[in-house]
Amino acid sequence: MTGPVSSDPQIPTPGEARLIDGKGFANRLTQDIAEDVRAFYARHQVTPGLAVVLVGNDPASEVYVRNKALQTHRAGMRSFMHMLPETTSQEELLALIARLNIDPEIHGILVQLPLPGDLDPVAVTNAIDPRKDVDGLGVVNAGRLALGLPGLVPCTPLGCLLLLKSYVGDLRGLNAMVVGASNLVGRPMAQLLLREGCTVTVAHIDTRDPQVLARQADILVVATGCSGLVNGAWIKPGATVIDVGISRVPVENGKTRLVGDVVFDEARHIAGQITPVPGGVGPMTIACLLRNTMQAARELVEGVGDTV
Amino acid sequence: MTGPVSSDPQIPTPGEARLIDGKGFANRLTQDIAEDVRAFYARHQVTPGLAVVLVGNDPASEVYVRNKALQTHRAGMRSFMHMLPETTSQEELLALIARLNIDPEIHGILVQLPLPGDLDPVAVTNAIDPRKDVDGLGVVNAGRLALGLPGLVPCTPLGCLLLLKSYVGDLRGLNAMVVGASNLVGRPMAQLLLREGCTVTVAHIDTRDPQVLARQADILVVATGCSGLVNGAWIKPGATVIDVGISRVPVENGKTRLVGDVVFDEARHIAGQITPVPGGVGPMTIACLLRNTMQAARELVEGVGDTV
Repeated sequence: MTGPVSSDPQIPTPGEARLIDGKGFANRLTQDIAEDVRAFYARHQVTPGLAVVLVGNDPASEVYVRNKALQTHRAGMRSFMHMLPETTSQEELLALIARLNIDPEIHGILVQLPLPGDLDPVAVTNAIDPRKDVDGLGVVNAGRLALGLPGLVPCTPLGCLLLLKSYVGDLRGLNAMVVGASNLVGRPMAQLLLREGCTVTVAHIDTRDPQVLARQADILVVATGCSGLVNGAWIKPGATVIDVGISRVPVENGKTRLVGDVVFDEARHIAGQITPVPGGVGPMTIACLLRNTMQAARELVEGVGDTV
Repeated sequence: MTGPVSSDPQIPTPGEARLIDGKGFANRLTQDIAEDVRAFYARHQVTPGLAVVLVGNDPASEVYVRNKALQTHRAGMRSFMHMLPETTSQEELLALIARLNIDPEIHGILVQLPLPGDLDPVAVTNAIDPRKDVDGLGVVNAGRLALGLPGLVPCTPLGCLLLLKSYVGDLRGLNAMVVGASNLVGRPMAQLLLREGCTVTVAHIDTRDPQVLARQADILVVATGCSGLVNGAWIKPGATVIDVGISRVPVENGKTRLVGDVVFDEARHIAGQITPVPGGVGPMTIACLLRNTMQAARELVEGVGDTV
């Protein structure tokens, strides 16, 4: 769907990693999708539509949801926001999803997590029609990914994979390590890397001596949420490092700044290529949400899927 | 469902691995299931029923299917065999599965693979009601496994896991390597080991220097179908080795014998514990099919699942 990154593919200066420009890549991807949206409208007189459901008033979730709506609109898609009170019952939420499932104007449905109170995220996620599950978090899409079948893939690992394929090229035969085994990032990331022919190791909270294993990895994807967990001792010289973590930490003068799970100032002297935080993986997530919505619209309207 | 293996847990002689007695374990598991079947009948007046569908006349498949029927009967379950001609159409096969899906006497459905001709194994497998998918090969059960939800797990990796839990105990924090990335064994095996808290590496045909990675593994599961692929140089001293492979190879005098993917005579001097071939993993597969059928019957009749 998008071409390779156009930034200068020069060999990095020894001792200084090439920066992986996720922000620029995401901007180009969004532009490509906007073109796809126009062409799709010209063919079918249908504009892809994304419904985002937010329950409750979590301020961080409100920011995410608003940003998703803005980017959706920017790509020329229709954005439908459903903001429900914290008192919403499971039945009410499931009834809304049932309506969105059969609404022909809606091609993607996203329920912002976490859900407040007693709402069951597994039941809610799996109530979404798998063809509209643009977060790729339901059982059917997870199963399709696990079995190597086409489907909708979770947005953050998909964004990481697009960056890797653009900056590394063919991944076949490379050693990859994924640090963190969440359903949102680590596990689907491992599946995607396996699909590309990597030898994949998944490390997590129970892993002993993770840095010994990490130092064998040509590709290191870190998604733990522990800021500064991965220092220079984890990194194989020349490796490509994808830092999914993003945490706000205090610095001097009472100020704060955003940092990743990787100690960037150590890693950039050892890695061959590395994502900065912010501006690396972050912008890719929403761009991949739009990509998934475009894919879902194609599948629903044309009956053809689109794999990574 | 079954207790730990009762074979003598003695420390192995240095230089000689303890044999993992899959045959004995499978026999005890089948006896336990037979007791569960009797207790289930006493509670519900329902006998678990397994339908096995065989299309065509592949001699190996006929042996497998007959053996499955015999073992099912031995465990006190009802066995239903559907042997269809090679000329069976996709529509006829799907129509049979649809009937079995709604048949209250059937709790498990297994379609013997490979299917002949143009029959689509993915479409056929996914036509089985996920609650009756006792091979665990459908998208829904693969997704449930990938997401850490309860479900029906493919029989061979489940059998390997039961042996590992019995012979190793708590697997948390151990380094595990799975050699082979098939949907039938390698991939679900990796998911199961991850669920137990192992650090999991999946190696396959594209892996470079697999023996270097393998020598770091406390648990080595080999499922490639390449007889003799894994020699002593792959094995960490004291590791537990599970050999899923089974191939018939020629020996002198025009005779043949069954061997695994592991060079047993080298491995047994390095490994701490190892499955023989035959008599290791093989007998566990059918026992786990019966276990899954019992689990499916419970889920269908009582509405409660049973996880590993």
